[in-house]
Amino acid sequence: MDRTQALEIVKSHLTEHRYIHTIGVMETSITLAQKYGADVKKAEIAAIFHDYAKFRPKDEMRQIVKNEGLPQDLLLYGSEVLHAPVGSVLVKKEVGIHDVEILNAIYHHTTGNSNMTTLEKVIFLADYIEPNRQFPGVDEVREAAQQDLNKACLMAVKNTIHFLIKQNQKIYPLTFDTYHGLLEIIKQK
Amino acid sequence: MDRTQALEIVKSHLTEHRYIHTIGVMETSITLAQKYGADVKKAEIAAIFHDYAKFRPKDEMRQIVKNEGLPQDLLLYGSEVLHAPVGSVLVKKEVGIHDVEILNAIYHHTTGNSNMTTLEKVIFLADYIEPNRQFPGVDEVREAAQQDLNKACLMAVKNTIHFLIKQNQKIYPLTFDTYHGLLEIIKQK
Repeated sequence: MDRTQALEIVKSHLTEHRYIHTIGVMETSITLAQKYGADVKKAEIAAIFHDYAKFRPKDEMRQIVKNEGLPQDLLLYGSEVLHAPVGSVLVKKEVGIHDVEILNAIYHHTTGNSNMTTLEKVIFLADYIEPNRQFPGVDEVREAAQQDLNKACLMAVKNTIHFLIKQNQKIYPLTFDTYHGLLEIIKQK
Repeated sequence: MDRTQALEIVKSHLTEHRYIHTIGVMETSITLAQKYGADVKKAEIAAIFHDYAKFRPKDEMRQIVKNEGLPQDLLLYGSEVLHAPVGSVLVKKEVGIHDVEILNAIYHHTTGNSNMTTLEKVIFLADYIEPNRQFPGVDEVREAAQQDLNKACLMAVKNTIHFLIKQNQKIYPLTFDTYHGLLEIIKQK
């Protein structure tokens, strides 16, 4: 599937704001993939489809969690967490993408996991730092992304945990796994 | 066991600084227990012995984790985490305290858990706010402790997670469970 086709498919599933964000994630992902040695074409496709399920009704997302063998603890969380694993299911079923690396990068783009692939890190980080993102701390992560993929991902997940805790929001366990996994990598250096 | 006996036993296991801290935890625990309806005598004893294992050599602590059926993931953590569960084992074996509520309060005084008893909350909070503690945010938690035990404990665990993440330190899973457990209670109000 080429970029034009992919963008055409995803556009109808997103708001304009979210489509602009998706273009930003795509461009940033390609740059990061080139820099850190991930498959550039897979990064492009994963980025384009990363928010494919973002605007599905929550009931539909929950149904997919129940029917598709996703971890049932997802049902305790909101759309912010659900849309990523649900997206990986729908991109496979509706768009016909079967590449496991791409599907895993979509699945983990919000939370990460304890042992992320380079492609997963690229999508996770691009989603956080793409040029339309504006929030405290994002510029420091953008700078780190020029130097060290793991360090930048660690900064992003740390900021995310701080943010969620300040807001009294639940934190999906994979987010902590991501923090610990990246910490191990950074400390081994 | 009366207070004098208990303090005499624990004194030989602590530095002077830590003994003064223990007296502070004891006094604060008694006040909190009276205020929030925990057993005052159990709070006193749990507080006196909460740091009983603090200065055991790390190898001894690890051996106790291995031999006494404690969760083996504790072996991935340092003395700051280990001393609490190891303390509950040693207070039972060496001091002869068998009261499960007291032992659980010692076990969970650093991390908390997802479903804390009032006594556990009292010891956890007293350890955080006793008068000798001085660090950013402690006064706000002291004030909250006058109003709402759960809210104050939530503030304490949130501060702890922020602190550990800033320091790039691992976080024991029970600490996250404590955050989520207290969040549920606060949100139900």
